[in-house]
Amino acid sequence: MLKNQLLIAALLLGTAASSLAQEKMKPEDTEVWEPVPHVVATPVGQAPSDAIVLFDGKDLSAWESQKNPGQPADWPVAGGVFTVNKKAGNIWTKQKFGSYQLHLEYYIPQDIDGEGQGRGNSGLFLAAIGNGDEGYELQILDSYNNKTYVNGQLGSVYKQRIPLANPARKPGEWQTYDVVWTAPTFKSDGSVETPARVTAFVNGVLVQNNVELIGGTQYIGRPSYKQHGPAPIMLQAHGDPSKPISFKNIWVRPL
Amino acid sequence: MLKNQLLIAALLLGTAASSLAQEKMKPEDTEVWEPVPHVVATPVGQAPSDAIVLFDGKDLSAWESQKNPGQPADWPVAGGVFTVNKKAGNIWTKQKFGSYQLHLEYYIPQDIDGEGQGRGNSGLFLAAIGNGDEGYELQILDSYNNKTYVNGQLGSVYKQRIPLANPARKPGEWQTYDVVWTAPTFKSDGSVETPARVTAFVNGVLVQNNVELIGGTQYIGRPSYKQHGPAPIMLQAHGDPSKPISFKNIWVRPL
Amino acid sequence: MLKNQLLIAALLLGTAASSLAQEKMKPEDTEVWEPVPHVVATPVGQAPSDAIVLFDGKDLSAWESQKNPGQPADWPVAGGVFTVNKKAGNIWTKQKFGSYQLHLEYYIPQDIDGEGQGRGNSGLFLAAIGNGDEGYELQILDSYNNKTYVNGQLGSVYKQRIPLANPARKPGEWQTYDVVWTAPTFKSDGSVETPARVTAFVNGVLVQNNVELIGGTQYIGRPSYKQHGPAPIMLQAHGDPSKPISFKNIWVRPL
Amino acid sequence: MLKNQLLIAALLLGTAASSLAQEKMKPEDTEVWEPVPHVVATPVGQAPSDAIVLFDGKDLSAWESQKNPGQPADWPVAGGVFTVNKKAGNIWTKQKFGSYQLHLEYYIPQDIDGEGQGRGNSGLFLAAIGNGDEGYELQILDSYNNKTYVNGQLGSVYKQRIPLANPARKPGEWQTYDVVWTAPTFKSDGSVETPARVTAFVNGVLVQNNVELIGGTQYIGRPSYKQHGPAPIMLQAHGDPSKPISFKNIWVRPL
Repeated sequence: MLKNQLLIAALLLGTAASSLAQEKMKPEDTEVWEPVPHVVATPVGQAPSDAIVLFDGKDLSAWESQKNPGQPADWPVAGGVFTVNKKAGNIWTKQKFGSYQLHLEYYIPQDIDGEGQGRGNSGLFLAAIGNGDEGYELQILDSYNNKTYVNGQLGSVYKQRIPLANPARKPGEWQTYDVVWTAPTFKSDGSVETPARVTAFVNGVLVQNNVELIGGTQYIGRPSYKQHGPAPIMLQAHGDPSKPISFKNIWVRPL
Repeated sequence: MLKNQLLIAALLLGTAASSLAQEKMKPEDTEVWEPVPHVVATPVGQAPSDAIVLFDGKDLSAWESQKNPGQPADWPVAGGVFTVNKKAGNIWTKQKFGSYQLHLEYYIPQDIDGEGQGRGNSGLFLAAIGNGDEGYELQILDSYNNKTYVNGQLGSVYKQRIPLANPARKPGEWQTYDVVWTAPTFKSDGSVETPARVTAFVNGVLVQNNVELIGGTQYIGRPSYKQHGPAPIMLQAHGDPSKPISFKNIWVRPL
Repeated sequence: MLKNQLLIAALLLGTAASSLAQEKMKPEDTEVWEPVPHVVATPVGQAPSDAIVLFDGKDLSAWESQKNPGQPADWPVAGGVFTVNKKAGNIWTKQKFGSYQLHLEYYIPQDIDGEGQGRGNSGLFLAAIGNGDEGYELQILDSYNNKTYVNGQLGSVYKQRIPLANPARKPGEWQTYDVVWTAPTFKSDGSVETPARVTAFVNGVLVQNNVELIGGTQYIGRPSYKQHGPAPIMLQAHGDPSKPISFKNIWVRPL
Repeated sequence: MLKNQLLIAALLLGTAASSLAQEKMKPEDTEVWEPVPHVVATPVGQAPSDAIVLFDGKDLSAWESQKNPGQPADWPVAGGVFTVNKKAGNIWTKQKFGSYQLHLEYYIPQDIDGEGQGRGNSGLFLAAIGNGDEGYELQILDSYNNKTYVNGQLGSVYKQRIPLANPARKPGEWQTYDVVWTAPTFKSDGSVETPARVTAFVNGVLVQNNVELIGGTQYIGRPSYKQHGPAPIMLQAHGDPSKPISFKNIWVRPL
């Protein structure tokens, strides 16, 4: 396999190539046969076969309470969906993740009330690194005819990256998030080696195109990085007084 | 809007920030209110409202023959799909595009025959820049239990980037491509300013994660860049002797 | 219109027709132009446009408590579905119906327990005519690998009509009921004029083919008719100790 | 099993029942345990497991030419659908059927032209009994904003039964037919013992509710019965000059 990797490297970087040399190459010279990508089954409407299913309708056994680590995620489950329980606070995955592809579906009640940030507010923390709302938050909010600051609307990296579009469906329809998360890496001294990157689609529409993050989300002040390793994925029990939102069909594929 | 852009720039880059200063900031200080992302309707199973529909089942009026520019794309349309016609050769869009998000569905016949590159071969050229198979090709191939060189299988950037996984469905099922294409830019002297980048999902599974391309696809020899501007999107009428594949539901959102 | 109805009657019954006469008829002679059937829009995945939506994800405002008529249907709603609340008892529609076409979706929890009639038991009463479980019950039950008496399994008219097949999906998947209900009619003395009839599909599979009913459902004893007029549609809060089932997407088209 | 059938008969017909007797019955007395309905798997979007698939996208091997029995059904197949070929004439199934449940999807081109009966005309013959258009025809026609005689529009039993509603989708969308066909039976002298019956849904909307037929379809003259046994299912290549319609996903479950 090493040989093949060298072959690829040569192919990609090959400094000795001249147009003369190229003319004498054969088609076979640029074929690469290894490593063979793993096979993934993709049945329509189901999680890919290599995904870790974080919720499939049954229970929240993949999650736990954030404020009481080790305690169950006390959000009610019924009819194949689960619903935010503000009293129980945020929930996060027991398992920790580096970079990954994630799929999630959320539902804002048809009779949602409130406005601005107080209307269907939750959040998907791509890596939760503290005990509160620390980490990198992709905003979940009812942004259907609901004005707020644009770096805080649906599809934003909260207070850091404005979404490319507003694809919010109206309350009472299921909506989707598809995310590619590239976790940041850190040097031994805690400084950033490679920053975090996010690609995200809401309802199939690109809202973040491999944007580079400048740090973890801050409600007050500027984003900044703190060193961390693999981290849980977190769903926010936002304190706003509007009706609670629901989730289903969550899976993640570590990259 | 200029003021706001300065505000964002300050927010993102602000070098003078100290933790002391940060503590005195208010939540409002990091709210950004403009520019407001445009609204996109996303009805389930349909193209987003801001998409250019390249094929919606009716006809190939958005396409033309590549070898006979200005002539109709002579691939047969029936039942809401269209099918490759090898004799007519490649077809490409009349409209030219820079960077974009694209969705496409393809179908390999259940009774496909052949093997390797000769089994369900076509290609999605993200930008077609010549008169033949020149451009940047995302490979379309029956890679369900069909071995070939890995930089030429489904999901590869042909002879340039191995896919991260093999999510091929078996012949006789519709499959999907979702792509984010970042077109390359060139300096006035024709050299590359920013290389092309591709993110791609096959059947919902990430196969290319914002990979940087080293040039246009080459069947023989190494990829290289040639200066170009906005370019058509092209579908390949591959010369292999297997049964022809079909397409439907193609749309593109310029970014 | 009367004229047309006579024309139809003549066409259908015409006793004077001889083969000689038939040979001299023209195509136009058997065309009927009135009455014109009403137009119904049928968007994919949504209720037909002429349907009365009994639940669309928002609330149970079309329903009320059976045991406390006039009181709200106190079953919890979240994430676009609602779930049986045994303590609150059966719920039925505020509106009364004669004959109709109905669609309903139900969900048995993935971790259902119990067995026989004590496993995912509920019921769709096509016409509820008393204060308890009186009426005509289409059985809802987890019949996936769960043995019980066959006139009490999923798809049966409870204790009256065995289903033609057992199309039960496994717990944790949404399932569908599609029903055509022909209400019984009664003479002025209370005796049956025309008996009730039911056609039903579970998950798209025919389980009852226009079967004639011999009376209302009885848990003990033989079915019998009691005179009634238009009646509510009822969902049963069965007393069995297994986990509660959920419902969504219910609509009815009076015929 | 005989014992059980007697038990059912007794249960259904039992004339000796008095209310006194009924009070002394136990719940178990009206349980029936046999025969056990067969299990049918019902994966979403696929044919039930006990269905005979007449077309699954691959080929028309279940069909043959009507005018040249034994010859292939020469209608073109591409992209998982097949399309009417007028020159080849009607096609019918090699297998013959009695009563059954059937599912079929059809597609009228977005750019359909013509009007009245000359616009998207085809037909589903529930039992084809001759060499031409003889049998029992459920009409397929573009009835979206296209006036014709109502006993000849979409959902009619041609020139015999007006549909209960007009659920036509506009051209360019796939549409569905779901049918329950009860074949007629005949006495040894050729006279009708039990007439044919049809229940049909178009796009999920009931258009025929177990209607009794008065005979086979006639273009000219009154319907009449001719004795027949199991018969092929036929799709019509109508001679009208409008663009051809397509079909997919056809299956049948003998009852």
